[in-house]
Amino acid sequence: MARREAARLLRRLGPLAVESPTRGMPHCQHESANRIVNSCRRFHWIPSLQRPLCGPTTSGGIYEGQSSAKKACEVQKRTFGSAATHIQRNPAYSELNSDDVSYFKSILCENGVVQDEDRVAVANVDWMGKYSGASQLLLLPKNTTEVSKILSYCNTRRLAVVPQGGNTGLVGGSVPVYDEVIVGLSGMDKIISFDNVNGILTCEAGCVLENLSNFVENEGFIMPLDLGAKGSCHIGGNVSTNAGGLRFIRYGSLHGSVLGLEVVLADGTILDMLTTLRKDNTGYDLKHLFIGSEGSLGVVTKISVLTPAKLPSTNVAFLSCNDYKSCQKLLLAARRSLGEILSAFEFMDHHCIDLAVRHLEGVHNPLPASPYKFYVLIEITGSDESYDKTKLEAFLLRSMEDGLVADGVIAQDISQASNFWRIREGISEASVKVGAVYKYDLSIPVEKLYDIVEEMRCRLGDSAEVLGYGHLGDGNLHLNIVSSKYDDNTLERIEPFVYEWTSAQRGSISAEHGLGLMKAEKIHYSKSPEAVQLMASIKKLLDPNSILNPYKVLPQSVL
Amino acid sequence: MARREAARLLRRLGPLAVESPTRGMPHCQHESANRIVNSCRRFHWIPSLQRPLCGPTTSGGIYEGQSSAKKACEVQKRTFGSAATHIQRNPAYSELNSDDVSYFKSILCENGVVQDEDRVAVANVDWMGKYSGASQLLLLPKNTTEVSKILSYCNTRRLAVVPQGGNTGLVGGSVPVYDEVIVGLSGMDKIISFDNVNGILTCEAGCVLENLSNFVENEGFIMPLDLGAKGSCHIGGNVSTNAGGLRFIRYGSLHGSVLGLEVVLADGTILDMLTTLRKDNTGYDLKHLFIGSEGSLGVVTKISVLTPAKLPSTNVAFLSCNDYKSCQKLLLAARRSLGEILSAFEFMDHHCIDLAVRHLEGVHNPLPASPYKFYVLIEITGSDESYDKTKLEAFLLRSMEDGLVADGVIAQDISQASNFWRIREGISEASVKVGAVYKYDLSIPVEKLYDIVEEMRCRLGDSAEVLGYGHLGDGNLHLNIVSSKYDDNTLERIEPFVYEWTSAQRGSISAEHGLGLMKAEKIHYSKSPEAVQLMASIKKLLDPNSILNPYKVLPQSVL
Repeated sequence: MARREAARLLRRLGPLAVESPTRGMPHCQHESANRIVNSCRRFHWIPSLQRPLCGPTTSGGIYEGQSSAKKACEVQKRTFGSAATHIQRNPAYSELNSDDVSYFKSILCENGVVQDEDRVAVANVDWMGKYSGASQLLLLPKNTTEVSKILSYCNTRRLAVVPQGGNTGLVGGSVPVYDEVIVGLSGMDKIISFDNVNGILTCEAGCVLENLSNFVENEGFIMPLDLGAKGSCHIGGNVSTNAGGLRFIRYGSLHGSVLGLEVVLADGTILDMLTTLRKDNTGYDLKHLFIGSEGSLGVVTKISVLTPAKLPSTNVAFLSCNDYKSCQKLLLAARRSLGEILSAFEFMDHHCIDLAVRHLEGVHNPLPASPYKFYVLIEITGSDESYDKTKLEAFLLRSMEDGLVADGVIAQDISQASNFWRIREGISEASVKVGAVYKYDLSIPVEKLYDIVEEMRCRLGDSAEVLGYGHLGDGNLHLNIVSSKYDDNTLERIEPFVYEWTSAQRGSISAEHGLGLMKAEKIHYSKSPEAVQLMASIKKLLDPNSILNPYKVLPQSVL
Repeated sequence: MARREAARLLRRLGPLAVESPTRGMPHCQHESANRIVNSCRRFHWIPSLQRPLCGPTTSGGIYEGQSSAKKACEVQKRTFGSAATHIQRNPAYSELNSDDVSYFKSILCENGVVQDEDRVAVANVDWMGKYSGASQLLLLPKNTTEVSKILSYCNTRRLAVVPQGGNTGLVGGSVPVYDEVIVGLSGMDKIISFDNVNGILTCEAGCVLENLSNFVENEGFIMPLDLGAKGSCHIGGNVSTNAGGLRFIRYGSLHGSVLGLEVVLADGTILDMLTTLRKDNTGYDLKHLFIGSEGSLGVVTKISVLTPAKLPSTNVAFLSCNDYKSCQKLLLAARRSLGEILSAFEFMDHHCIDLAVRHLEGVHNPLPASPYKFYVLIEITGSDESYDKTKLEAFLLRSMEDGLVADGVIAQDISQASNFWRIREGISEASVKVGAVYKYDLSIPVEKLYDIVEEMRCRLGDSAEVLGYGHLGDGNLHLNIVSSKYDDNTLERIEPFVYEWTSAQRGSISAEHGLGLMKAEKIHYSKSPEAVQLMASIKKLLDPNSILNPYKVLPQSVL
């Protein structure tokens, strides 16, 4: 493509304001995380059902709703998108009695022991309303010592426990399955210290991510992770689930950012690993065991985390490519040319764009001229507005000349940038407006990432529409399959194929959401038997009575 | 300071060539790592002794050399700079017999079983000649299955094992203490795959870091770590010791870069965690247990690692500051202004510079005009030569105007850049030319990092010269105490004070070298008793017969 033509196609719309366009928009680790009740329909379950998908299964995909959380003890769970999960309450656990409650009242302040039915009911249900337990007790410790006393007691009494942060997870990891005692961390929300030379934040686990974000931004830093759920999620939950999110491509995983943890083990032992050092090679780095173990090995109570310096300039471009190979090559070129300022590389196929434009109010395709097959959103963040933009423009011109990009625009202001992001983030919302949506969150080597989308299209024919999009820069595909209604036959054509295919590529069946209750029994698709066995051994070592977050993460058969 | 004056002081010497100035220079995780024999005197032990400091202790700091490695069985170790370590051979271990050798010959190829005295002797001694064991057998497996068979057999027979990579460690972690069987990984040096879209390298553990570095550079990427020892060290050893090195400030620790591992456990179980995915939240992330566990939990056999894109432009500046506070502020400003292109921030006090200029041939102070108290070396690496340089110049001008920088120069070519790096890296070499040197490698919160240097100066008075330098950007201080000769009184004034002081600051007594044999018994200075106890429990879980790298990492008392 001639440079002049490329320059013509690259319609530059003017300067982008300094403020990040992502602020205030519903980005989300788990797709748009707007928490108003009506938006719940965007998630995994069948849109025609308005009640949580917990309740006695009668037959072939017909479900009765449950009238109260208390019934959960008697019921079995069913989760769409990951086949059925049937779990019995473990009889080894004691049942809560009045002596237990008296003890907790003796060690916690008045507001720390919650038995009020309405308040406990809220804590029993996840934020999607998809998973529901039947706990009768919510404990709200104010400090690590209280957490320690609670766990020590529960361990002795064999009372099962669910640690709960902001309760924004997507896999049922943060709510009880049966009558587990809920230990909420919301009362532990203090910022302990901030080293404004090195950008090292130390805080309690119950701090809301957005509060931390605001705090460090005032100091000229940013949190190394950002999620749509940031207004509710706790940093302790982020660490416990190894949350990915929007800044992953730039700042990597929490295994790299978290410097230290304080964790309370199942027996009440307080494990102080709360270093604020960047380098420390003295013995095994135990904190990593607790990052991403979903509260099943210990309760994270304090965190120190490295925060990157806040950079003032953000630019967003929306591009089209004629084939998936070009998207891959564009990613390679972007890594090379934009290297240190690249902050997002998201891709969508044209089915996604069509759906978003069709179903979302106010959303339009910035590149409507031709029916392109793929679209890419690139964001750069750097320290020099004019230079960064010049660099982005030069990169896009080169990419057009090289034939990688068919067309493209750069946002001229926050509004345009927001529209670009809105398309990408609206896909999930648009999907559920069709009717039923089967959602999968997969990690697959980039070169094969789109194959599963095409194979799925072949398998399903006209019976459903298959959308492929996601964080291409991280090798993270969101595979959404939408059709007018839920259908067991369709599900059978999707599963276990999607897991088997992902497994054959050495992919991950949970890129960033964790396993929780939803996928605990599916771990073998992504982990070897030896690895699962070692996980089970470590679980038994750290929590021999298995009181922490039972029924989750690992298959019941290995515990 | 007026802008004009600042511009005058900032003597720009011209453009720096694109090639990194660090190539071919003796950078090192453990200070200059030139491996010629004479340079051994640069390290921890007393320069007046030319023999390894292993041998029967007679009394108060007088040592007899040992005539052969075989004597090591009878001797006790003494390590300067970390007090004495006295360890008895664990009688639970079997002694090697001819049946064992026959078995190993039956499972390994002819060259895989080495009994030749000279070759085994080389593997018995660490590269500094500081630690020496008395193994009679070196095994060189060619693949994971052979490693598995070796460990399975040794576990059953209770034969202790030392995994050995490039044998470039500084804490005695890679050589036998007594008669452990040495399992060398040098025969496993294949590159398995390279994903040139995502920059993901998969290789065997015995690959030499420099070979990998050359390989990925040809593909347009760089290894996320770089050490002076790269010509000898193995990637498996890097992972097992969580090597830090020169790129740490930019690319972080191996906990962030390593994507997957294959590890053979003590009982021969092959643990396949060799994913190449950036995101995978399915169960506990076990690989982190093996990163930095110094071969005591398993033998790393394969690695997949994320390699950053290679950027074409490098610039180096050498600056002076009037006080330590200015160095800290300059670091903060550099993080803010140079953010995404900052690749090194090293500091030295004037004692270091004076020493280097005095003792190293061809080294001169680029800023000789005034006697400044502190010096800082800043390196930037980016994708645009002219822009990056303009940015660096603007940053330095601002820093001078703000009074943070007293004087400074930017290298105009590789030769000048090399001279700047030579000063920084020559400090260790210059130190040992004085006579005795007591070396400490500490992680300390940046704001207190220089306090220990000043306190040590007060404690020691005129009896020794105290130098402070290191990776300020990582909070990693190299504290060198030099005097004309070794003196027990001096050592007693240094230790345990230096460890106690570091511990009181919640610092690390080993920022990047690990514990090995040298500091296994010192772990409590940096880790809580609960954490050490859990480490011991994990060690017992993974290696119940304790055959892997005995006497190291953890105190004998907890095992």
